[in-house]
Amino acid sequence: MSNLLKGAAILGQSGGPTSVINASAAGVFIQALKEENITKVYGAHHGIKGILEEDFFDMGYEDMHELELLKTSPSSAIGSVRYKLKDFQVDDTDYRRLLEVFKKYDIRYFFYNGGNDSMDTCNKISKFFQQNEYDCICMGIPKTIDNDLAGTDHCPGYASAAKYVATSLMELYQDATVYDVPMITVVEVMGRNAGWLTAAAQLAVYKGQGPDLIYLPEVTFDIEKCFEKVAQIMNYKNKVIICISEGVQDKNGKYLPEAMGELAKDSFGHAQLGGTAQVLAKQLGEKFGCKTRAIEFSLLQRCAQHLASKVDVEEAYNAGVEAVKAATKGITDMMIAFKRDKDTYGKYYCRYELTPLSICANTEKKVPLEWIKPDGTGLTLDFVNYALPLIQGDMKAPLEDGLPRFAKLVRIKAKPIH
Amino acid sequence: MSNLLKGAAILGQSGGPTSVINASAAGVFIQALKEENITKVYGAHHGIKGILEEDFFDMGYEDMHELELLKTSPSSAIGSVRYKLKDFQVDDTDYRRLLEVFKKYDIRYFFYNGGNDSMDTCNKISKFFQQNEYDCICMGIPKTIDNDLAGTDHCPGYASAAKYVATSLMELYQDATVYDVPMITVVEVMGRNAGWLTAAAQLAVYKGQGPDLIYLPEVTFDIEKCFEKVAQIMNYKNKVIICISEGVQDKNGKYLPEAMGELAKDSFGHAQLGGTAQVLAKQLGEKFGCKTRAIEFSLLQRCAQHLASKVDVEEAYNAGVEAVKAATKGITDMMIAFKRDKDTYGKYYCRYELTPLSICANTEKKVPLEWIKPDGTGLTLDFVNYALPLIQGDMKAPLEDGLPRFAKLVRIKAKPIH
Repeated sequence: MSNLLKGAAILGQSGGPTSVINASAAGVFIQALKEENITKVYGAHHGIKGILEEDFFDMGYEDMHELELLKTSPSSAIGSVRYKLKDFQVDDTDYRRLLEVFKKYDIRYFFYNGGNDSMDTCNKISKFFQQNEYDCICMGIPKTIDNDLAGTDHCPGYASAAKYVATSLMELYQDATVYDVPMITVVEVMGRNAGWLTAAAQLAVYKGQGPDLIYLPEVTFDIEKCFEKVAQIMNYKNKVIICISEGVQDKNGKYLPEAMGELAKDSFGHAQLGGTAQVLAKQLGEKFGCKTRAIEFSLLQRCAQHLASKVDVEEAYNAGVEAVKAATKGITDMMIAFKRDKDTYGKYYCRYELTPLSICANTEKKVPLEWIKPDGTGLTLDFVNYALPLIQGDMKAPLEDGLPRFAKLVRIKAKPIH
Repeated sequence: MSNLLKGAAILGQSGGPTSVINASAAGVFIQALKEENITKVYGAHHGIKGILEEDFFDMGYEDMHELELLKTSPSSAIGSVRYKLKDFQVDDTDYRRLLEVFKKYDIRYFFYNGGNDSMDTCNKISKFFQQNEYDCICMGIPKTIDNDLAGTDHCPGYASAAKYVATSLMELYQDATVYDVPMITVVEVMGRNAGWLTAAAQLAVYKGQGPDLIYLPEVTFDIEKCFEKVAQIMNYKNKVIICISEGVQDKNGKYLPEAMGELAKDSFGHAQLGGTAQVLAKQLGEKFGCKTRAIEFSLLQRCAQHLASKVDVEEAYNAGVEAVKAATKGITDMMIAFKRDKDTYGKYYCRYELTPLSICANTEKKVPLEWIKPDGTGLTLDFVNYALPLIQGDMKAPLEDGLPRFAKLVRIKAKPIH
């Protein structure tokens, strides 16, 4: 054991929030505070930016009960960031500063929790430390509602967002069909390049209460074909619900607000307000002369902790714990990955594995084209079988006054060792 | 008992859906099916329109388990309608048709579940039947997320929507403050004339995780004053969250999309797309030169059954039961009203009373001005004390495959008696 690294550990949260990124933070903090070789546990304020600015919290001051509550607290409790490091061969300013701060605080364990860009950050820092012979374990922990990280079966955060999308669509289905008048409802879901989250709409379809048409960014969007489909559905039931990804593009590679919005610039030449759902609803309203409604799930889909999947919360927490356990065994330069397995009863089971950071960094995993129906308006049962085990169970914050009680951290600023 | 009316009963659901209008329907159906004097129990397909078109379901064919599941099924299971009856002194065509249908099916109990307009409908039908000496009990059951019905302390549907608004705002608060960059978030809540639902934002403020500014339709909106407030808040924390009612008006009585949208008509003279939050966010973005985000809760706030308040579900169910019990005692021309009381432990307790339909019809109850802070940007503790007991507890649909299992009705069409 003597050859194992001893020193402080730091966690950074990075990229867009999810309902369970704090569950991974809970896993890291709670496990790290138990480890003999970890002398201090820090939380970086706004990810890598907090480290560069020497702005981080000493998690040893936090109440264990509040750390436990992080499991059911949405968004990023220590602050997130979108900050892309340059290649250190081009400009190593940030890296030299990081090294300085790491040395000053004797940080020997670096955990970074995020999506593609964040794994890229983690990978670059890992490689820079190796090259400069600074002994530091670097571990990535996956996170993204987009579910587009390579090297893992799925990503923490995805399942809870998918559960939100499917549940909300089932509720909207009840609402949007309630009047005896023609109506087109267009619902927009996040996901710029990968359609995993929009695909969750298929789970509502599977339960018989889903949208009629689902459009993913994996397939080129053709407004004329969409008109045809809508006309067919209007003909027999007078109501159409469409679920569309914010990331769909037309054949010229333009997002819909750009493709359609140009038709309607204001008198100053500005494009009109409105996202994908809104511009599509406007086009459909003009075409079919009926009432339309555009709904954007917006930030709600990534922070609606009250609809978190229990499986997701537990896996996110475990990912944090496993990252610390692997790190204190001396494993570095890896990301925790999820491997889908079956238990002895044939039931879904998740194994935690390790994938090299270099594989996860900057690679986007999209929805397999063979899971998308030939006409591009829905998903096959393969997708349903993939997603359903992930959204099982509820695990929401305890109620206080009928409202969620999220973790309250004291956030005491860390002091340098040296 | 012999002088009590014997005959069929019918329920109509009317107006915008809520998370608990079906709970009231469950109360009416389950209780009515037990009553000796009620020979048949019907559900009108799309409210009064279904009765006029002789399109309704015989609820006796429904599985009791499914009727129980109505308690936790959002929206209007038998279809809703927006249909305003003319005064029968002016045109009694619809009324004569209603009388014909009621006689044909021997309907002697009429239950109508809705808001202001629906109580007006119920009141008019009640008065017409009295004048035409057709013996029929007419009972109103309140329902509206707007909470603006007169003659009752609060309305079924309001509390669940309020719980959705407060919970979602607390989650958005976590999300919208996560980056270290200036940001203005504007959230739009339903309520055209009364600000009750927008006021629920104050519950999130009460929990320390709410919007900075809350604008209700009860107070004239002044964009310059709003700019001043935002500037002050931006100065000390760089992030502002605003919750605004869709119904706010400027000093000329114009809704914001009209008041502000006119500044930015497109080249064809059409007003820009966008609701209240969107046009306000655009103005604030231009003024403060920072990132803004507009979020509309849209239909979600009225159908998000997964966030229903247990108190609301139970009161809505009881309102249905009490309506039937009162009706079978021979009471007519009334609406079930809620009276706030305290039990022997000083805890909130709801008593069910009766209020004449004529009082409830078409009167809008607004948020008392003394509950609104002098600067018009928030609510006092009086409001918090009013709303908090109503949003207690959870009662959501059972899960099946990790998703809600809503009631499935067979909806067998009714056949005439005569």
